[in-house]
Amino acid sequence: MLKDKDFVYIDYIGKVKDTGEVFDTTIEEEAKKANIYNKETKYAPKLVILGEHNVIQGLEEALYQMNPGEEKEIEIPPEKAYGPRDNTKVKTISLGELRRQGINPYPNMVVRLSNGSLAVVKSVSGGRVILDLNHPLAGKTLVYKVKVVKVLENESDKIKALIERWLGSSYVDKLNMELDEKKNVKFTLPKELYLVEDIQIRKYMLAKDIINYVLPESTVTYIENYNKEVFSQ
Amino acid sequence: MLKDKDFVYIDYIGKVKDTGEVFDTTIEEEAKKANIYNKETKYAPKLVILGEHNVIQGLEEALYQMNPGEEKEIEIPPEKAYGPRDNTKVKTISLGELRRQGINPYPNMVVRLSNGSLAVVKSVSGGRVILDLNHPLAGKTLVYKVKVVKVLENESDKIKALIERWLGSSYVDKLNMELDEKKNVKFTLPKELYLVEDIQIRKYMLAKDIINYVLPESTVTYIENYNKEVFSQ
Repeated sequence: MLKDKDFVYIDYIGKVKDTGEVFDTTIEEEAKKANIYNKETKYAPKLVILGEHNVIQGLEEALYQMNPGEEKEIEIPPEKAYGPRDNTKVKTISLGELRRQGINPYPNMVVRLSNGSLAVVKSVSGGRVILDLNHPLAGKTLVYKVKVVKVLENESDKIKALIERWLGSSYVDKLNMELDEKKNVKFTLPKELYLVEDIQIRKYMLAKDIINYVLPESTVTYIENYNKEVFSQ
Repeated sequence: MLKDKDFVYIDYIGKVKDTGEVFDTTIEEEAKKANIYNKETKYAPKLVILGEHNVIQGLEEALYQMNPGEEKEIEIPPEKAYGPRDNTKVKTISLGELRRQGINPYPNMVVRLSNGSLAVVKSVSGGRVILDLNHPLAGKTLVYKVKVVKVLENESDKIKALIERWLGSSYVDKLNMELDEKKNVKFTLPKELYLVEDIQIRKYMLAKDIINYVLPESTVTYIENYNKEVFSQ
């Protein structure tokens, strides 16, 4: 049985119960089979930290009941998935307004409105467009086939998983890490990270996750060393 | 006499020789007198690092010949100021095109074009606008009245001047600094700097200036400590 703050890697295939349509999976060959393969996606077991609420509620709750290596199929009602459908989120707007946003709508098209929200075009006729702003999975009962591939046991592996999350897998070995007997963590950053986009926020989030989920009493220290070699190129 | 890499604070009043027009000054009452006072500007002696080429060439060259406390008036030809005028930078464009960029031009207006460059409107007539893309001071001989207010002597003061440049004066005392006997510099950052905009670039530039202008053989180290207090608010 798993518990709060466990680092769990899962493989899953998520389907809509009524139609059997596969909408998400961590497994490359399943994605190809279901015609949802995306070459930008990294197909690999997904890290779930229990209690983080980073996956839908029904899936997270089910994981607490599972054991390492176990595989099962779970049915998740809309209330523990993407919520019920809300009919007030179905709106009619003028075709002209959408066209001014550079959108030429057709039925089932997914559009991003100027306010950033996503909507599905239900119909286009007589200069009017009916848009559905509900999440496409709202109101649906989902079926997940899920397998607990791995559960991390030691602190150092958990920290590495978080480095991968925030800096990418290529830095897991490049970020020099020391974990002292008082469980304080010290990272010495390699020079190539100094000007990576958003590096300060990534460092902040990495430290936050380490303290929230691995070593709550720890101090996480980052050290950056600049000398003339850094600036000569 | 001053030399390369000296940290010099100067006050100045810059005028166009022909017209006597004051276009820039570090002194608040002079700015008010000349009607160029801007309440966003901090009027205070300006830091010039000799050899950095951060001020016009003629002014920098003159500073090398001066002594702390000295005041003098120097005349700077266009070649050592904003360059000669280039008549190919006077262009005619259609009024309609400027209006499409949201600009309603009138003579002497300074406009920012969609490519980012600044231009002065010379005339508007018959649907055509003549723009001058030369720097407004191109081709002018300038007269600077300049005073060397202060020259920094010790390394620690120079580093503080650079902290002020890159992080603002409020951090000069908040950034814990240690300078060891090997002239290595260690900064411990206060928590409130962790998520300041562009902090990573500011740290990079601060280290770069310290190494270029103060302690070339030094290692500049930044230390950031994250613990649960950082994330609890």
